Amino acid sequence: MNNFHVIGILGGGQLAQMLALDGFPLGFRFVFFDPTADACAGLVGDLMVADYDDEGALEKFAKQCDFVTYDFENVPVKAAEFVAQNTSIFPHPNVLEIAQDRLKEKVLFREQLNLPVGDFYSVDSYSELVFAVKSCDNDGFLKTRRMGYDGKGQHRITNETDLKKLWEEIDGGSFILEQAVHFNREVSVILARNASGDILCYELCENKHKQGMLTTTLVPATPSKHSDTAFDYAKKIANELSYVGVLAVEMFETNDGLFINEMAPRVHNSGHWSIEGAVTSQFENHLRAGMGLPLGSTEMSKGYSAMINWIGEIPSVSLTSKEKDVYWHIYGKQNRKGRKVGHSTVVADNAQELHTKVVKLAKLLGA
Amino acid sequence: MNNFHVIGILGGGQLAQMLALDGFPLGFRFVFFDPTADACAGLVGDLMVADYDDEGALEKFAKQCDFVTYDFENVPVKAAEFVAQNTSIFPHPNVLEIAQDRLKEKVLFREQLNLPVGDFYSVDSYSELVFAVKSCDNDGFLKTRRMGYDGKGQHRITNETDLKKLWEEIDGGSFILEQAVHFNREVSVILARNASGDILCYELCENKHKQGMLTTTLVPATPSKHSDTAFDYAKKIANELSYVGVLAVEMFETNDGLFINEMAPRVHNSGHWSIEGAVTSQFENHLRAGMGLPLGSTEMSKGYSAMINWIGEIPSVSLTSKEKDVYWHIYGKQNRKGRKVGHSTVVADNAQELHTKVVKLAKLLGA
Repeated sequence: MNNFHVIGILGGGQLAQMLALDGFPLGFRFVFFDPTADACAGLVGDLMVADYDDEGALEKFAKQCDFVTYDFENVPVKAAEFVAQNTSIFPHPNVLEIAQDRLKEKVLFREQLNLPVGDFYSVDSYSELVFAVKSCDNDGFLKTRRMGYDGKGQHRITNETDLKKLWEEIDGGSFILEQAVHFNREVSVILARNASGDILCYELCENKHKQGMLTTTLVPATPSKHSDTAFDYAKKIANELSYVGVLAVEMFETNDGLFINEMAPRVHNSGHWSIEGAVTSQFENHLRAGMGLPLGSTEMSKGYSAMINWIGEIPSVSLTSKEKDVYWHIYGKQNRKGRKVGHSTVVADNAQELHTKVVKLAKLLGA
Repeated sequence: MNNFHVIGILGGGQLAQMLALDGFPLGFRFVFFDPTADACAGLVGDLMVADYDDEGALEKFAKQCDFVTYDFENVPVKAAEFVAQNTSIFPHPNVLEIAQDRLKEKVLFREQLNLPVGDFYSVDSYSELVFAVKSCDNDGFLKTRRMGYDGKGQHRITNETDLKKLWEEIDGGSFILEQAVHFNREVSVILARNASGDILCYELCENKHKQGMLTTTLVPATPSKHSDTAFDYAKKIANELSYVGVLAVEMFETNDGLFINEMAPRVHNSGHWSIEGAVTSQFENHLRAGMGLPLGSTEMSKGYSAMINWIGEIPSVSLTSKEKDVYWHIYGKQNRKGRKVGHSTVVADNAQELHTKVVKLAKLLGA
């Protein structure tokens, strides 16, 4: 008899869905835990619909799983800790706790690891806000410490900002003021680390955002003198956290070097290209790490790759067109403004070909 | 609101599973109908467990589907016809009826389409058997007319065969005696046809069998003077049947030309390589045809491809090794002698590289 492994995922979004799609050909079974009945991972596996504080449901969920992991970093830490009492969970709930709080994250990077980050200030009161804004030369971002993603919960601070009015509008809470980092480009390192401490990094990803949301990733990023440093920083973080799974670290590249922006303790949107663009996708390697299997090669499958997000709407061309080296991923979510509903990937043999294909694809998508 | 389409599949084996895995990224949902609770497609979608004569269950199944198709050709025709009263079904149940009966199939090929097949004789009695064997020069295969697959239900007939004993053993029923075709190689055409009559063929597949089961497929088959003819024959069959979906036609290549062996009205084991080896897999094109979408390009993604079946046992290397251009597919079925439990695919830029990779892979698999 074979023992087919069951993997549980807290959260049932597109990341959970893609983890399952890459895990099925390895014979893994999946169960998803999500408070929402129409969570899109339900399309491809068993969806347990329950709240994150429902310990009966969490216990039932955990007990059928070889190990549990996350679809997103805002899974309540308490739920993750409860699951940890019943089965293995990767990455460790401690990591979630740090990743959920921008302040703790920055403190880890700067104080604990001595890595470069833009200046930041904890803001819990109006007077702290005023002090922090002055320290940042009126040039920064006020962000909620918790539950922010895709540019949500962020306010640009400039000379023009009416701080009094802003403070009244946001109506209290815990914030961080981050000095604006004037960067030349944004890059991310996607790495996989297993429990033995083996680390494999994917090629450096160059990311373009619009209104805080990732729109395009190009891989490998055009080489710069900072590329090696980027990998060193990300590995340092992973080792410090005894990290198991795929970790994404976003960084800003400036004239003064690299600054770490944030980390995501999970598979990451800027790694979606790896499904077709790498020998082993970030999804498969996340599962391999959790499973204690050897990591798969992270080298490029064809040399170059790019990913374009579909935000708000599934492009109609995705069902009619089917071209060589172009791949569609529809998540099965309803169209909604500002929502990631799918993505497309292209692969190419060289940078020039990639550029040509991306331009053609963007035109096809009407992007 | 998007309308995500629901596709039903009668039968829940690995073909249904792979149809779903390729359909998910297009946003399709799947429901499988199978009498067996552990049918392996259940790994990746909703499995309705009921018998094929349970009309209540069939109606419930059909009514939620945009269209229905098959995992295997031995789905009872009555069940398919009942489903057809409630939703679209492709290919047409008439095609199932022919494909389920070796005699009807051969009559279609030879009488209706004037295509070359080896000599064959209907055998319903001992005297018919004796006559047929004599007509075949004591060199043939006695096969059950119905429910045979993967070499099951077949008896080799030679000078040595004790016909009296054999007839007693098989204990009646409807048979066909096929004269042995002494072939140089076995090839298959995999094509996709949509309701508008568009046909796209994959490159010719060269297949190796062991004890009636497919073990290896190499694509494209080394070109021969018969290649064009093979495509013509398969297209003739598809057009005659007003076929919708993927059709596989197996043929023998001999010194005297091609002889058609049999057809499969579904995606086919000798087309599994297309998941990674072609721009559009046979699974996606089967769904596209059923959905009325334009067919996707059937050209090779990299030039060359091969598929090796795993029969009886999942090779342990499939979880530990992960090499470039080599892909594993574990179906999630229990190991069992003679059972197809998975397959591996390789892709390559040229024939020599493919050969090297296949030899290396076979060694890795212990095949």
